[in-house]
Amino acid sequence: MAKWEEIAAEKRAKLAASIPKEYLFPEDQLPPADQLDVSGVPAKLLPKDVLEITEQTATELVKALAEGKYSSVEVTTAFIKRAVLAHQLMNIFTEFFPEIALKRAAELDEYYKSTGKTVGPLHGLPISLKDQFCVKGIESCMGYVSWVGRVAKENSTIVDLLLAAGAVFFVKTNIPTSLMAAESRNCVYGQTVNAYNRTLSPGGSSGGEGAILSMKGATIGIGTDIGGSIRIPSSCSGVYGLRPSHGRFPYLKVVNSMEYSEAVVSVDGPLAVSLADLKLFSKSLLSQTPWKHDPRVIALPFQEYELPTRPLVFGIEYSDGILTPQPPVIRALKEVAAALTKAGHEVFEFVSYKPQEGTDLLVRAWTVDGGDNINGDLDASGEPGIPDIYEFIKNLKPISIAQLNEFNKDKLNYKTEFLEYMNGVRSPSGKPIDAWIRPVAASPSPPAGQLKVRYLGYTGLINILDYTVVVVPVTKCDPAIDLPESAPGTGADQKLERLTWEDYKNPEDYRNGSVGVQIIGGRLEEEKMLAIAEVVDNALKA
Amino acid sequence: MAKWEEIAAEKRAKLAASIPKEYLFPEDQLPPADQLDVSGVPAKLLPKDVLEITEQTATELVKALAEGKYSSVEVTTAFIKRAVLAHQLMNIFTEFFPEIALKRAAELDEYYKSTGKTVGPLHGLPISLKDQFCVKGIESCMGYVSWVGRVAKENSTIVDLLLAAGAVFFVKTNIPTSLMAAESRNCVYGQTVNAYNRTLSPGGSSGGEGAILSMKGATIGIGTDIGGSIRIPSSCSGVYGLRPSHGRFPYLKVVNSMEYSEAVVSVDGPLAVSLADLKLFSKSLLSQTPWKHDPRVIALPFQEYELPTRPLVFGIEYSDGILTPQPPVIRALKEVAAALTKAGHEVFEFVSYKPQEGTDLLVRAWTVDGGDNINGDLDASGEPGIPDIYEFIKNLKPISIAQLNEFNKDKLNYKTEFLEYMNGVRSPSGKPIDAWIRPVAASPSPPAGQLKVRYLGYTGLINILDYTVVVVPVTKCDPAIDLPESAPGTGADQKLERLTWEDYKNPEDYRNGSVGVQIIGGRLEEEKMLAIAEVVDNALKA
Repeated sequence: MAKWEEIAAEKRAKLAASIPKEYLFPEDQLPPADQLDVSGVPAKLLPKDVLEITEQTATELVKALAEGKYSSVEVTTAFIKRAVLAHQLMNIFTEFFPEIALKRAAELDEYYKSTGKTVGPLHGLPISLKDQFCVKGIESCMGYVSWVGRVAKENSTIVDLLLAAGAVFFVKTNIPTSLMAAESRNCVYGQTVNAYNRTLSPGGSSGGEGAILSMKGATIGIGTDIGGSIRIPSSCSGVYGLRPSHGRFPYLKVVNSMEYSEAVVSVDGPLAVSLADLKLFSKSLLSQTPWKHDPRVIALPFQEYELPTRPLVFGIEYSDGILTPQPPVIRALKEVAAALTKAGHEVFEFVSYKPQEGTDLLVRAWTVDGGDNINGDLDASGEPGIPDIYEFIKNLKPISIAQLNEFNKDKLNYKTEFLEYMNGVRSPSGKPIDAWIRPVAASPSPPAGQLKVRYLGYTGLINILDYTVVVVPVTKCDPAIDLPESAPGTGADQKLERLTWEDYKNPEDYRNGSVGVQIIGGRLEEEKMLAIAEVVDNALKA
Repeated sequence: MAKWEEIAAEKRAKLAASIPKEYLFPEDQLPPADQLDVSGVPAKLLPKDVLEITEQTATELVKALAEGKYSSVEVTTAFIKRAVLAHQLMNIFTEFFPEIALKRAAELDEYYKSTGKTVGPLHGLPISLKDQFCVKGIESCMGYVSWVGRVAKENSTIVDLLLAAGAVFFVKTNIPTSLMAAESRNCVYGQTVNAYNRTLSPGGSSGGEGAILSMKGATIGIGTDIGGSIRIPSSCSGVYGLRPSHGRFPYLKVVNSMEYSEAVVSVDGPLAVSLADLKLFSKSLLSQTPWKHDPRVIALPFQEYELPTRPLVFGIEYSDGILTPQPPVIRALKEVAAALTKAGHEVFEFVSYKPQEGTDLLVRAWTVDGGDNINGDLDASGEPGIPDIYEFIKNLKPISIAQLNEFNKDKLNYKTEFLEYMNGVRSPSGKPIDAWIRPVAASPSPPAGQLKVRYLGYTGLINILDYTVVVVPVTKCDPAIDLPESAPGTGADQKLERLTWEDYKNPEDYRNGSVGVQIIGGRLEEEKMLAIAEVVDNALKA
C-alpha cells in the first residue's frame, strides 16, 4: 500500500469512527448491494418520528421550530439519523460531527426556552455543507490526500452568518478531487452514488450535497459553482439549486482550488428540496448583512420580486448547437415547454450567443495557472487524481500577465456582445424574454465514476456570463420512453455528440437518472429567478 | 527635431486649427504671461450673454433648457466661447469639435421645437470629456505620441448613454502621458495649468477636466480614477468630484493604460461646480440603464438617500500616519471639523487601518505587467514620457500568475480586515461613523510639471478598497496664514515627509493652490455620499 493509500484509509477509518454506532443500521437490514434505487429505503427503515420531521421542508420546519412544535435537538437528531442511513447507502460524508451539532441544538433550545424567541430565521435547522466550507476544528481536505489533517482554524464567513441566523451544522459532504469535475469521487473518500440508481453518479462537484438532499438527510445544502457544480448535482439528484451571481453571497474563508484566481470566480449557493427553501436560505443569509464582512458582497438586501400579471415569455434552448442533448434531456425540455404553454405563457425556441466562444473562455479561465495549483496538491501526496482531467492539465503552462489581459479583454467583449444580443432577442409575438431555459447537461445523472458528463458548456457558459440560475427538477430517465437513437449530427462538435449519444446506446445505463433544467436570468437577479422558477415548477406540477 | 517631436508639433497644430478664429481672443486682449490668477478673466472679457449662461450650474441650465428659456445652440455656443478662452489661458484641450457639437445642439433644438419635449434629463447640456473617452471620428491619443492619429471607430458606452440623455460633447481635455501621474502634461499637448495660479498644476490625471470646470468652460466634466485621478484634480481646481465604486457607471470602450488588467480597476465619474450637478449627472446616467450595455455595471437605479434627522458622525483623519500633510491641508481639515461641529455634528479624529499596506497593494496592482504596457507605448515613438515615473517602471518585470494570485489574496485579506476594522470604529459618544474624511493629498495644487504630489496614498488607498468618495472644495493656500514649518516628523515615512515639507518652504510657491477633502463612504454608496457631502458643503458655506 502506497503512503497516500495509507493516509486515505486512515482518514476513512476516522470518518467511520465519527458515526456513533447507535445511528448505524446493521448490514443485514440494509438493501443488498445490487438494489439500485434506494430512495425508498428511509421510509422503510426509519422510525415514524424521524420520518415525520425529515419529510418536511426547511420552510415548514423553521415554522414548527419557531412555534415550539419541535426542539432543535429533536429535528437535528432526526436528520442525523436519516443522513447516516443515506451515507450507509450512498457514501456521502466527508466529515461528520453530531456531538457539535447536538450541543449547538441544545443551546438553541435553551435560548428558545428561556427567552421564548428564536435566534434568527433559521433557528434550529440542520444544514449540510460541501466539504469546502470551514467549521472551526473540523478538517476540509477537498478530497486531496495531501490536505488530510488540515483542521480549520476558523469558520467560513457564510457558516458564521448562518449560525447567527440559527442554523445547525452536522455534516460535510463529498466532492471530486480538486472540485474540477462533474463527479463526486476522490482518493480519500471514494465514490458517492445516486439515490435513484446506485450505479449512477450524483454529479459534482457539489455531488454530496445533491445526494444528501435527495435522501432528505438535511434540510438545505450549500454548494459552490465555478462551471456547474451547484447545478449539475441539483439536476442529477432531482433537487432544486440556486447559482447566484458573484457578489450576492459571502465566499470568504472557504477553501478552494485556485483560490485567489479572478479569471472566473466560484460562487456559493443553496440546494434544497423546494424552491421555498432556496428562498428561505437566501433571505435568511442576506438578513445577516454579509456585505459587512465579505468585501466582495454587494449590499443588496433580499427584495421580494413581484411577478408581472401578464403571461411570461420563455426562450428555450433545446440544444446549444454544439452538442445535442440525449433523448431524456430533450424530453424534459419539451415537457417544460408544454407545461408552460398550457399555463398560458409564451415559449419559443431560442439560441444563445456564440456558446462555443463562452465555453472556450471558461476553459481558458480555469487553466490560467497551467494547472500548477492542482498538480501541486496532487504531487504532494503522489495520489493519481482523476486521470482524464489531470492528463489534460499536466501538459499546460501558466499564461503570462499579458496573456491574462488578453483573456480579460476577450471575456469582457464576449459578455458585452452577449448582453447586446439578449437586448435584441424577441419572441414570435415581439416580446423580450423573462427567462432563458436550457439543459443543465447533455445527459441525465450519468454512470458513476466514468466522467460521462463530457461537456460542461451548458452550465459553464453561465459562469463566464455570471448570470443567475435556478435549477428545477423535471423528470427521470425512463428507458421505456427515452429510446436510444444514433447521434442526430446537429451539434457542431460531431465527435463529442457521437460519443455522448453512444454513451446512451443502452438506456438501462441511465435508468432513473434525474434531469433538471436551468432557468436563467440576468446578473444579480436572484429574487426574480426564484419567482420565475416557481412559475415553471407550478406549471410542471399542474 | 526628432520624429516624435514632429508628430507632436503637427498634432498641436491640428488642434490649434480646430479652433475657429472667431472664438479666439487676440493675444493683446489676454492677460500677460506673468499674471498668475486668471480665474477672473472670463468675467472681464466675455460678453454678457455668454456670462449669463456659463455662470449657471448644470442643474440650473437643464431646467432653463427644458423650459425653452435657452436653446441648446445658445448654451453650447456660450460654453464653446468660454472654453476657448480658458484654453488660451491654461492649455486645456486635446480635441476640440465645435461643429459636431453645434450640429448636435441644433438637432436637439429642432426636436424640442417640433415635439415640445426634451430628449432626456441632460437635454442640450454641453459636457466635457477627459481624453480617454471616445467620440466616433475623434482621436484619443492619451498623450502618447505613438497613439496620435488613432481615430475612434465608435463612442464610449458612457458617451452613447449621455447622448441618449441629451448631452452635447464639444471638447476633450488634457492628461499626463499614460494617465499614471497626478499631473496633466505630456509630449503631445504639453502642460495644462491652474486657473488660480498658472505656475501651479491642475493635478491629474483628469487635470484638464478640473481646469475647464474651474473656469466654467463646461457644465460637467467626466474623469477617471485608478489612484486619485478624479479626486486630485477636483481638489487642485477647487471643484466637486465623485469617485464612484466600480460597477456603478459604465466604462466600456474607454481607452486606457493597462486596459484589461483587473488587479485594480479604473472607474469613471463626474467633476462639477456643484454637488447638485454631480447628482444630476449620476441620476441622468443611471436613468439610461447602463447595466443593459456594460456587463460590469450593476443594475442599481439611482435611489434618493434620505439623511437621518440625527446629527451625523464624522471620523476625520488629519494624517494617515505615513505623511503629515502640509499646513494648508491641515487647516482645511480643521475648518471642515469646525464647520461640522458648529452645525451640530459629531466629529472625532480617526485613524484608518494599516494605510501603508493598502498603498503598497495599489503600487503592486499598477505594476503587475512590469510596466510593459506603458513602456511599449512610449518606446513605439521614442518619446521620453515623464522621467520620474518611467525610470521607476523601466526596471520592473511582469509578475507570474502565481504571484498575481498571491496579490489577489493579500488584497482580499486587506479589504476584509479593513471592513471589520470599520465595523468596530466608534465615536467618543459610542456611535459608528457615517462618513470618513481624509485629505485628497498632502499638498494643495502643486507647482506645475514637477510631480510634487509625491505620495498618492491618500487617494490610492480608496482604489484598493473601492469605496465611494465625494471631493468637496474647502479653501485655497494663503501664504499669510499657512506659514511654512519644518517637517513635524510624525509621518512614518520621514524622508517623504521631509521632502514634502521642504517643497512648502516658500508658501508663495503654492499661493492660491486649492484644497479639497475626501468624504468617504462604503462601496456603492454614491447616493449616500452625495447627500452627506452636501451636509459638509452646507456647513462650510454657513
